[in-house]
Amino acid sequence: MHKYTIHFLPADKSVEVEEGTTIAEAAQNADLFINNLCGGEGVCGKCRVQVSKGLAEAEEHAKGFFSADEIMKGYVLACQTEVNDDLEIIIPPESRMDESKIMIDGATEGSIKYEFKPVIKKIYLELPPPTVEDNVPDIERISRELRKQLGWQAFDFSLDCIQHLSDMLRENEWKVTVTVSKHGNNYRILKIDPLNTADSSYGLAIDIGTTTVVAQLLDMNSGKLLGSEGCHNQQASYGEDVISRVIFACGRGGIHPVQKAVIKNINQLIKKLAKEKDVPIDEINAIVAAGNTTMSHFLLGLTPCSIRLDPYVPTADEFPQIRAEEIGIQISPRGILETIPCVASYVGGDIVAGVMSCGIPEHEEVRGLIDIGTNGEIAIGNKDWLVCCSASAGPAFEGGGTRCGMRAIKGAIEKIKITDGRLKYETIGNARPRGICGTGLIDCIYEFVKNGIIDPGGKFDRNRSDDRLKIEDNIPQYVIAYPDETESGTAVVITESDIDNLIKSKGAVFAAIKSLTDYIGLGFDMIDTFYVAGGFGSFLDIPKSIAIGLLPDIPQEKIQFIGNSSLTGARMCLLSESAIETCVNISRSMTNIELSTYQPFTDEYIAALFLPHTNRKLFPSVDY
Amino acid sequence: MHKYTIHFLPADKSVEVEEGTTIAEAAQNADLFINNLCGGEGVCGKCRVQVSKGLAEAEEHAKGFFSADEIMKGYVLACQTEVNDDLEIIIPPESRMDESKIMIDGATEGSIKYEFKPVIKKIYLELPPPTVEDNVPDIERISRELRKQLGWQAFDFSLDCIQHLSDMLRENEWKVTVTVSKHGNNYRILKIDPLNTADSSYGLAIDIGTTTVVAQLLDMNSGKLLGSEGCHNQQASYGEDVISRVIFACGRGGIHPVQKAVIKNINQLIKKLAKEKDVPIDEINAIVAAGNTTMSHFLLGLTPCSIRLDPYVPTADEFPQIRAEEIGIQISPRGILETIPCVASYVGGDIVAGVMSCGIPEHEEVRGLIDIGTNGEIAIGNKDWLVCCSASAGPAFEGGGTRCGMRAIKGAIEKIKITDGRLKYETIGNARPRGICGTGLIDCIYEFVKNGIIDPGGKFDRNRSDDRLKIEDNIPQYVIAYPDETESGTAVVITESDIDNLIKSKGAVFAAIKSLTDYIGLGFDMIDTFYVAGGFGSFLDIPKSIAIGLLPDIPQEKIQFIGNSSLTGARMCLLSESAIETCVNISRSMTNIELSTYQPFTDEYIAALFLPHTNRKLFPSVDY
Repeated sequence: MHKYTIHFLPADKSVEVEEGTTIAEAAQNADLFINNLCGGEGVCGKCRVQVSKGLAEAEEHAKGFFSADEIMKGYVLACQTEVNDDLEIIIPPESRMDESKIMIDGATEGSIKYEFKPVIKKIYLELPPPTVEDNVPDIERISRELRKQLGWQAFDFSLDCIQHLSDMLRENEWKVTVTVSKHGNNYRILKIDPLNTADSSYGLAIDIGTTTVVAQLLDMNSGKLLGSEGCHNQQASYGEDVISRVIFACGRGGIHPVQKAVIKNINQLIKKLAKEKDVPIDEINAIVAAGNTTMSHFLLGLTPCSIRLDPYVPTADEFPQIRAEEIGIQISPRGILETIPCVASYVGGDIVAGVMSCGIPEHEEVRGLIDIGTNGEIAIGNKDWLVCCSASAGPAFEGGGTRCGMRAIKGAIEKIKITDGRLKYETIGNARPRGICGTGLIDCIYEFVKNGIIDPGGKFDRNRSDDRLKIEDNIPQYVIAYPDETESGTAVVITESDIDNLIKSKGAVFAAIKSLTDYIGLGFDMIDTFYVAGGFGSFLDIPKSIAIGLLPDIPQEKIQFIGNSSLTGARMCLLSESAIETCVNISRSMTNIELSTYQPFTDEYIAALFLPHTNRKLFPSVDY
Repeated sequence: MHKYTIHFLPADKSVEVEEGTTIAEAAQNADLFINNLCGGEGVCGKCRVQVSKGLAEAEEHAKGFFSADEIMKGYVLACQTEVNDDLEIIIPPESRMDESKIMIDGATEGSIKYEFKPVIKKIYLELPPPTVEDNVPDIERISRELRKQLGWQAFDFSLDCIQHLSDMLRENEWKVTVTVSKHGNNYRILKIDPLNTADSSYGLAIDIGTTTVVAQLLDMNSGKLLGSEGCHNQQASYGEDVISRVIFACGRGGIHPVQKAVIKNINQLIKKLAKEKDVPIDEINAIVAAGNTTMSHFLLGLTPCSIRLDPYVPTADEFPQIRAEEIGIQISPRGILETIPCVASYVGGDIVAGVMSCGIPEHEEVRGLIDIGTNGEIAIGNKDWLVCCSASAGPAFEGGGTRCGMRAIKGAIEKIKITDGRLKYETIGNARPRGICGTGLIDCIYEFVKNGIIDPGGKFDRNRSDDRLKIEDNIPQYVIAYPDETESGTAVVITESDIDNLIKSKGAVFAAIKSLTDYIGLGFDMIDTFYVAGGFGSFLDIPKSIAIGLLPDIPQEKIQFIGNSSLTGARMCLLSESAIETCVNISRSMTNIELSTYQPFTDEYIAALFLPHTNRKLFPSVDY
């Protein structure tokens, strides 16, 4: 069978692979890690790479993930593209997964490094057998050796760690492997196994999003990322958004079904990852999970009811380190679960993990993190201070609350362009349109206002002669795709009320950003970098987002997409105690501005219900 | 119904009771606590009191517990004696159980006091409801208040503490009772209950002896002793002594039946105490248990096998604080079990508790503790140093290993006197003789050697003309009770080999005391007080114990019986964190001399196999 050489950039690594290997597999052979959210199914579009030399066939079914321009430039999905030529491949930043033996990078390359000090450690010990002169108890013989090796003073241990210790030590010639963990100031012996199993030590980083749950499997000795899996959060059957799930759980439904749903998700992901990577589930000894405050409460089975009620009080913002099996997660029976602490009811561990992963509290310069979803969470700060807030953006960005809104899945209209009165759209997966997703809506609004189809208040120009503009049941609407073009045979339209909803959503996010920067007394120009996180963020068109007044009007290079920074943060915490400590410090020190009772926010919100804004001076670059 | 006034001394408290009340009940009404090991069955003999004024009928069946002289002086069992007259009652020191609201006394009255700081505490909180200005998480609202009240900085809590906290707080107007504990440097929230239950807080002190298990129920708010219950350790069905139980557990039997036996004992005692004292089992939140190293291992389900094998290594000497339910003990599901730490394989938590309760590490003067049972454990020290050792005494003192030996129960010959060649004996319960117990054996040996029946080497004078002295199957033996006097119709005899066994036992104990005092370079005269502990110790005749060479020949007033000092120590630990800290310090700092490999002990042992000793100078007061 023929072999080809693949050269990866910017890593400058080459690898020889057999014909028919996928580019993703080739990268893995070269010890390079490419985003692989859907596990190689070709549906998440996260593994985009650019073929810069050589010929690789652009797979037809994945074209929906790329613009025509990108296809021209050689963009393909690494998991869907087979090697049939010598290739040079550029892995773009958004597709890279950093891994490092000694240091762990943050979400943005080189922005922050933490020492490699995994949350659990396996240590192989060859103990001196006891003598009459040295007859300390068995557990003390182990602790003594651990003190020498780790410099820790005292250890907690549970009863089941030591119940069969005596026999185990004597049957295995005093050779054992001890798994230890740290939580706060407590050092714990988690388990003691016979002989040397130190090589086999795994951990999981999990991001529990309202919409998706994503898990990554890591080798705890090398810090190497072994694989990623994601799925939709099955809690969706109890409500699309956080609030509706809380209402379900605090009503007749109870919390248990909601908790069970996400645990089931997690167990499925673990099973899949362990099988794929041939890792024994019993050797997965630690999980670090990050989620918003409600998701963290559901995960741990904590009553979330008061989170949604004034004055918005969660049960806890720091969570005990527990045995994962306490809540039914199937890893090693003594494996731990660490949940990243939250700041307030609407600023959760996902934001804390994100802020940590961007290195915001490590630098002089002021940086911001914006996570846009159903809620827009904003955090701004530097090494001396941190503030944050959260604004309810509504479901518009995630495809909810609009007549033809849908999630960013196959068949969703995600790009729209109106040139000389002619409308063109692109759908995900190049399928027949089924609806319109968040990015499509932003495109729409931008094209509408730029082309004078709506006024800056979001109202249709009813005097305009445009075949697509109709009034049905007194509701003005604009046809994006006619019935004969769509999957269902029903037109995909945007109504005036959809536009109104989107303006409210973008207004809330912008008002939150503006209120927070005003609160700290800084202009947008004094913020060094805005990191934009969230599944939505990764597909956002920056210039259009600025143009409709969603993001502040600052130079594009100051805005960076960082994808799922919650997951990145969880992964960093799994691999570094220092990262966890930083998260605890963030959760304790970050000031949360409660916008629902903060008058300036209300004023800013009203001022932002305009395209791009009632105060045009805030958006000098906008071209309509 | 007629009422009588009972005046108790030395407490100088009076109480009026109805005709027919027992003296024990009257004492309880007066808030005085009398030893009550058997729970008022009249079989333990621990509740002896002296009727100094008034008439109280000496109960016939309990006469075995008293000498004729004592009966003359008005001694009765408090639990078996009804009130039919105005009485003045002296409660002798050995029958008193100290209780104190604020300070906890040690085993010897006034010798040591610890601050009243119970190992668990219930704290009633009326929390300010959250506001927008003060919207910290629920658990932080509680922690904040606890920090204020207790001065603790951080709290651990388990997940199940907070899972329903949110609803509980809101449904009960922010009024909750928090149960907290301390273990080492960790503060823990054990549970949070609705409304004010702070008044209802109970704890248990348990002494787990090889032979008996004794539990005391305490009110954790007042420190008041509510009741005591004892029973035989059901592990006896797996072996009389520690070694045979270890052999069973490490052979085909396994550890589980042995562990289950003692847990069953404990649960029965708890049920009985809770029922008697009308205490809800769910409000018993803490147990402190003390036992020898093997008993502690069995209790916690730790493999005890290496304890009996050179170099005698236990699994642990300090034990984790666990939830009692982890090992099947039925108290509050979140109640804790603290096990007093041990020093070495043969110096356990019972000795550590005893040393603490005597206040040995609190004083300048050198003091010693001797616990005599199957093992003789000796600890000596002061506030600067502590040494200890353990010698296998064999079962002779507990009625084993001798032809007609038996435990100190009804029908056991416990006193013997030979005057002008005429032998008289007394049995426990005044019953027909069934055998001879440890104290009876000591009496015997003393009377034999004093009357020239045996020589100081323990051999019968075969030329002596004495009807009771016989040789059967070549074994010389002495008849204590003829067949027509006994319960079974078989003679109760002492053989030469029984005497030999007892000499070995007393030799081992004395050699251990001598080795230890020599090791530290102190003569017996430099030891301020010898405390003698153990169930056996309480019935020991000091002068005869000295005369046969069991105890050192020091002035009698320097020897104090302190009964079950292990239980006293456990009770003190339940009521005072400082007492636990002292126990941890004792277990860490006490030097254990391993006698099995200590040559001077072997020499001392051989020298002690003589009555009273090969070196007569060591026993100047001995009169034979």
